[in-house]
Amino acid sequence: MIPRYARPAMTELWTPEARFRIWFEIEAHATDALAELGVVPREAAAAIWEADRNAPPFDVERIDAIERETKHDVIAFLTHVSERTGDAARFLHQGMTSSDVLDTCLAVQLARAADILIADLDELLAVLRRRAFEHKLTPTIGRSHGIHAEPVTFGLKLAQAYAEFDRNRARLVAARADIATCAISGAVGTFANIDPAVEAHVAEKMGLTVEPVSTQVIPRDRHAMFFATLGVIAGSIERLATEVRHLQRTEVLEAEEYFAPGQKGSSAMPHKRNPVLTENLTGLARMVRGYVTPALENVALWHERDISHSSVERYIGPDATITLDFALARLTGVIDKLLVYPERMQRNLDRMGGLVHSQRVLLALTQAGVSREDAYRLVQRNAMKVWESDGQLSLMQLLKDDAEVAAALAPEEIEARFDLDYHFKHVDTIFARVFGEGGG
Amino acid sequence: MIPRYARPAMTELWTPEARFRIWFEIEAHATDALAELGVVPREAAAAIWEADRNAPPFDVERIDAIERETKHDVIAFLTHVSERTGDAARFLHQGMTSSDVLDTCLAVQLARAADILIADLDELLAVLRRRAFEHKLTPTIGRSHGIHAEPVTFGLKLAQAYAEFDRNRARLVAARADIATCAISGAVGTFANIDPAVEAHVAEKMGLTVEPVSTQVIPRDRHAMFFATLGVIAGSIERLATEVRHLQRTEVLEAEEYFAPGQKGSSAMPHKRNPVLTENLTGLARMVRGYVTPALENVALWHERDISHSSVERYIGPDATITLDFALARLTGVIDKLLVYPERMQRNLDRMGGLVHSQRVLLALTQAGVSREDAYRLVQRNAMKVWESDGQLSLMQLLKDDAEVAAALAPEEIEARFDLDYHFKHVDTIFARVFGEGGG
Amino acid sequence: MIPRYARPAMTELWTPEARFRIWFEIEAHATDALAELGVVPREAAAAIWEADRNAPPFDVERIDAIERETKHDVIAFLTHVSERTGDAARFLHQGMTSSDVLDTCLAVQLARAADILIADLDELLAVLRRRAFEHKLTPTIGRSHGIHAEPVTFGLKLAQAYAEFDRNRARLVAARADIATCAISGAVGTFANIDPAVEAHVAEKMGLTVEPVSTQVIPRDRHAMFFATLGVIAGSIERLATEVRHLQRTEVLEAEEYFAPGQKGSSAMPHKRNPVLTENLTGLARMVRGYVTPALENVALWHERDISHSSVERYIGPDATITLDFALARLTGVIDKLLVYPERMQRNLDRMGGLVHSQRVLLALTQAGVSREDAYRLVQRNAMKVWESDGQLSLMQLLKDDAEVAAALAPEEIEARFDLDYHFKHVDTIFARVFGEGGG
Amino acid sequence: MIPRYARPAMTELWTPEARFRIWFEIEAHATDALAELGVVPREAAAAIWEADRNAPPFDVERIDAIERETKHDVIAFLTHVSERTGDAARFLHQGMTSSDVLDTCLAVQLARAADILIADLDELLAVLRRRAFEHKLTPTIGRSHGIHAEPVTFGLKLAQAYAEFDRNRARLVAARADIATCAISGAVGTFANIDPAVEAHVAEKMGLTVEPVSTQVIPRDRHAMFFATLGVIAGSIERLATEVRHLQRTEVLEAEEYFAPGQKGSSAMPHKRNPVLTENLTGLARMVRGYVTPALENVALWHERDISHSSVERYIGPDATITLDFALARLTGVIDKLLVYPERMQRNLDRMGGLVHSQRVLLALTQAGVSREDAYRLVQRNAMKVWESDGQLSLMQLLKDDAEVAAALAPEEIEARFDLDYHFKHVDTIFARVFGEGGG
Repeated sequence: MIPRYARPAMTELWTPEARFRIWFEIEAHATDALAELGVVPREAAAAIWEADRNAPPFDVERIDAIERETKHDVIAFLTHVSERTGDAARFLHQGMTSSDVLDTCLAVQLARAADILIADLDELLAVLRRRAFEHKLTPTIGRSHGIHAEPVTFGLKLAQAYAEFDRNRARLVAARADIATCAISGAVGTFANIDPAVEAHVAEKMGLTVEPVSTQVIPRDRHAMFFATLGVIAGSIERLATEVRHLQRTEVLEAEEYFAPGQKGSSAMPHKRNPVLTENLTGLARMVRGYVTPALENVALWHERDISHSSVERYIGPDATITLDFALARLTGVIDKLLVYPERMQRNLDRMGGLVHSQRVLLALTQAGVSREDAYRLVQRNAMKVWESDGQLSLMQLLKDDAEVAAALAPEEIEARFDLDYHFKHVDTIFARVFGEGGG
Repeated sequence: MIPRYARPAMTELWTPEARFRIWFEIEAHATDALAELGVVPREAAAAIWEADRNAPPFDVERIDAIERETKHDVIAFLTHVSERTGDAARFLHQGMTSSDVLDTCLAVQLARAADILIADLDELLAVLRRRAFEHKLTPTIGRSHGIHAEPVTFGLKLAQAYAEFDRNRARLVAARADIATCAISGAVGTFANIDPAVEAHVAEKMGLTVEPVSTQVIPRDRHAMFFATLGVIAGSIERLATEVRHLQRTEVLEAEEYFAPGQKGSSAMPHKRNPVLTENLTGLARMVRGYVTPALENVALWHERDISHSSVERYIGPDATITLDFALARLTGVIDKLLVYPERMQRNLDRMGGLVHSQRVLLALTQAGVSREDAYRLVQRNAMKVWESDGQLSLMQLLKDDAEVAAALAPEEIEARFDLDYHFKHVDTIFARVFGEGGG
Repeated sequence: MIPRYARPAMTELWTPEARFRIWFEIEAHATDALAELGVVPREAAAAIWEADRNAPPFDVERIDAIERETKHDVIAFLTHVSERTGDAARFLHQGMTSSDVLDTCLAVQLARAADILIADLDELLAVLRRRAFEHKLTPTIGRSHGIHAEPVTFGLKLAQAYAEFDRNRARLVAARADIATCAISGAVGTFANIDPAVEAHVAEKMGLTVEPVSTQVIPRDRHAMFFATLGVIAGSIERLATEVRHLQRTEVLEAEEYFAPGQKGSSAMPHKRNPVLTENLTGLARMVRGYVTPALENVALWHERDISHSSVERYIGPDATITLDFALARLTGVIDKLLVYPERMQRNLDRMGGLVHSQRVLLALTQAGVSREDAYRLVQRNAMKVWESDGQLSLMQLLKDDAEVAAALAPEEIEARFDLDYHFKHVDTIFARVFGEGGG
Repeated sequence: MIPRYARPAMTELWTPEARFRIWFEIEAHATDALAELGVVPREAAAAIWEADRNAPPFDVERIDAIERETKHDVIAFLTHVSERTGDAARFLHQGMTSSDVLDTCLAVQLARAADILIADLDELLAVLRRRAFEHKLTPTIGRSHGIHAEPVTFGLKLAQAYAEFDRNRARLVAARADIATCAISGAVGTFANIDPAVEAHVAEKMGLTVEPVSTQVIPRDRHAMFFATLGVIAGSIERLATEVRHLQRTEVLEAEEYFAPGQKGSSAMPHKRNPVLTENLTGLARMVRGYVTPALENVALWHERDISHSSVERYIGPDATITLDFALARLTGVIDKLLVYPERMQRNLDRMGGLVHSQRVLLALTQAGVSREDAYRLVQRNAMKVWESDGQLSLMQLLKDDAEVAAALAPEEIEARFDLDYHFKHVDTIFARVFGEGGG
């Protein structure tokens, strides 16, 4: 966890205090269920909750000290609970194994982390929607391979991002469901010493579903799917960040990250305004993606379980969720405050001497009876001249002056193919698909 | 694609012939829709299908030769279609861009690949179910950390695998839906030169949904999610393969890959029977997982698109699906024919002098009023003796002989804790969860 | 292996024919050494070579057929050698195990692949050197964060690439040495049934060093290092490819991939000239990097060996080396024929109204006694005006007109800071570092 | 950074305090060189060092506060230095850019981290050597595919590990040299505003070499190679850890991690002694390997630089080195205190009824004139009987009783093939290769 890339709510989720609180709740709920089953005294179960309400907070340093001796984290915790809330604590953990607590706790943490990330996505989606409608019909050049292609609108670019993050939201909801299971099944998952009713009770109280079959641990394919989903979201973050970085290039400058008063772009070059937030997001995306591979390697535990997954999860549980939370919030801020320059977009759109309309002329020629191969050749030979003139020549004029083209298309037919609005006639259709019919 | 790790149906999907057939269908269906819209003559659209029925197969070498000249694959294909089926072919591809064909084709291929993989999973699930019920109550030792823990049944191990692959099936169904979209939206996705109705028609005919917003290409987060899902499945394959490898170890030998007559385990050591299929699966899983990272890196294309994803997909499209298809089939075969040795399982279960029952004694002591800490200490000191005797000493006897234990538990109370069936009383519960109530 | 991304010499290395030839040489050389030791008859050893010279080529299909029966590749091969060259063949493979042949063969293949890749790097380095000197003093704008920074020369960009690939060459030479070892040590590496002298003889004949300690297999940390090195080289390829892609962007267009007559950039847009080769290289780099993770996972084989590495190597051995060979050759071609536009570089350099000289003014102000903080503020407030004018205003003029600046610097002192050659005074120094003193 | 997986010396290297100290040294040494060149007053350069000696420590919180305003870390640092040591500080950073400081600092940190890791490897190597010689002739079964193969010694296993980590040491020394370069070259690496002599002076003082050509930043292929090397070392750690995990399995139990008095293996099962350290190492290895991919992705920065690498390095710089340092130390401890059970090794070796000697009989038969195919068949048919008897039958006896075998080999010839020492005759040879002639 890197403090500068961490926000409080998500970070809080991964503190020892938060973890011990969840452990306690799991243990105490389980003891309630055991009391209901008559395994432990009802008074003991009630006393555990009561004592907790009146006790000081968990003493993380004390628990750590006990763990250094016993080399076992849950035993250290239970010992501290005994010290903290008295004799009833000996009824805790009856028939359970450490992993019952640890794995169910991790499920709670990841589910809550997912809730924060889903809320992050909702904020990003809201911002993307607002700015997409703001620039629904702001013309800009579409680029394939970094080369001018045909006109689009800036709103369409944002609509695409909206649709992509909306898919990511659905994936994350699915990944959350995948991860949010409770296992209280004992040493190797047989419920030999604990009734399945305990698991059902704890699951319900902690907002989880029941793990159908566990083997001391919750199977790690669930976690792999969760972290893989975070990796896909990171990929989408990099995509949108890369778009902003491109748009802010000196020669393009169609949009720019907000530049705060007092901010310095460079210690050496006072003129610089750099897209540092989106470059940063590019790096953060690499990290979140990088955690996918260890998560995938965690699946193949030995037999009923080995503990190799644990150290991996101590890193990637917090690091992947905290980093992604930060990155989503940063991206939301970038899009929210993005400086957009429609005039510059128009100027760039115009700079290619009309080349962006070449396809429409090609189609007009074929519709006028010219073979596709000939039409391509006719358009290309004029387009290349414009290209080589660096946009100083006009494609429209060259086509009018080309005898073979003129033989097929009248001047006004050529002119009609250089109309910008022609390209935007289906923007409403696309917006309706992405945002719903009354999306605006 | 490595021939020895490839099966015909999946491989066939990725041949040039299959690709050109899909390209043709997309183009011809699109032309039908254009005819319906009045953009091209109905007779031309019909003639294209008719000519195809009477034409020789696509000539892959001819298309390659044209591509070497034009350096453009779809143009090469269209040129060949003209040569092959005559003049009507010039009405193909009106208003479309190459990616309309390429990306929709890839969607068809991946969707069909997913169908094969889903069928593979169904076969694996059927085999896992059959063998799980066969060994529903076959006792075997559960192991955590590779160390004997408590008894389970061999059927429970397989039920766990069933549940895991059942989750993978659901994930793959979702990934298939994610990937199975059609984009026929023109040069930068604006439908400037092609009506959205064409896309809708082709989508329906090819069994796809409509891509809400494309940008010349279908967004690559979809593909990333698809390949990430394959990576998770590969993780599960490695897990089950690793289980078999462990069970076949000389000292364990509780199960074994089927060993065919005439097979040689080693050129130098005639006595060897090695788990080579599951070791092979372990390696194949590494490969399928290895394809996840390039797929994640493919998401962040520049602007409306760059073509960097294309070379990646030429590798991982076939390689990931062909390898996973082979791996699933191989794993199904391994489980189907797995030699299972219940007597050996029982012998291993017995070898620890009753240590596997230590937890039950611990619980009995606490229920008899001994503090948890004392109970742990009492059991551990006897357990360690058994451990150090390599299972020659009997835990039950040592406990009976331990004065402090004897003070809390009568001999028959101790004996009652060494009952194997005690551990299996919830096997039915778990099977019902995994396979449904009437699962058998 | 994807045929379109494969070149003959490297591909040939990985054919079954090439592999069987290497197997034969290893086995026959080993038999020579065994004859020298008196273990097998000298005549038999000689007869094996003699029979081979007169025999038809290895029959790959026949060997495959035998392997389908025996399920063991080396046994299948030896059986075929017996069929092909007669009775003396029974003296082959005495005291050896399959891995002696397989692993030593892989070492030969990887060493030869490294030789091809080193030659590829030498060609790339030669081209980079030539073009670096050609453009040693061609001014162009240096960009950090995609934003204009200060002037550099195009030759410096290429010198950087040269230095980077020169480092890669040294790394590959080291990785080749790491991988080029011979193990002929028997079933578990103890030389129980084969004298170490055999290994020494084969190593010398095959151009390898002796593996100090093998365990049936050559340890896979060597291979991991080899493939990791290929991954680093792929990263450098992506870096240079990305530079070209940026330079070819419509708004920048300072350089361009060579565009062949007859080439079509887009089926729909005849005006397009896309950097498709460097985009392709970007994708190929992802693949070569993607093979690093499986290679790293291959290190931790079980005990003396398991065979999980084998399937991985069947993919990545050919795929990583063939792809990297192709990519290096393609990159060499791109740089060799790169169209460079110095006028456009100069025009872009000029477009920022002199902002690129801001740092020199900052330094002049501090040297004139202005505090660093004040100097920064003075320069920044004028630079921002130029920035917002999109380069229409002149920084030099604004500074002259700024009373606070004018109080510190005379007009001619300001002018002196806008000299382009000032930036290139150490180009010779850098070139001498990179290419050596007489580098040109 | 996870505190439980961190050791003080390495962690200290990555604190803000340590970083600011290195920044200061770089800046102050550079100012010395500038004074030597006459660019700044000698007194100022001297005053900076003097003031530092008398100043309070760097105030990290104050620097952070300034950075929150300026959004620029080096400017924040320089501002604080001014506050802390007075007016002379304005001569710092003349002609430099932030990356000169940041990248050179990172080089110092990584070089020092490498020094710690090299020392870690030296300690591991010393322990491996000691225990290898201790068990140089301790017989144990070699296993391929997890199946008994032929005898080795436990010392040979450790010698293999020694050789592997010795290679890793050499790789790390090379990676350190790759990373330990100094760049003080100004805004885009041209030395426009700073003399190369400054770079040379700082390099010498900080123990670095000069970066031949930088572009504001030190090229990231160097860092990629560094982290890839750490990934390879992690692979080797996993390999040795996996060996221990296997040896500690209940059924094998040939060696065991040291089990401290007071340690509890399981909260539920008091009898457990789990290989948790080596399982933990397996997980840590996954993490260190996981950092390789982001490092590889960092190479392809845009143009002269973008800052996307920076956030990645804030994670992996500390995380990869701290984790690997911890893992190496933990592995050293595991091997140092490993409980080794030679009697159990012998018992396991004996359990297969002599099958491990099958190859020697095979060779004896061929040397007696039996064809290889027949010999294989004869041995295999008897070996399979032993195999199926689970080691209850004796291979030696069965062979004597097999008429076809007896026709070729006399009983005493058969017996001679079941000699254990036969397998160890080259242990000295291998040890001399690995440890040198006087290695003991």
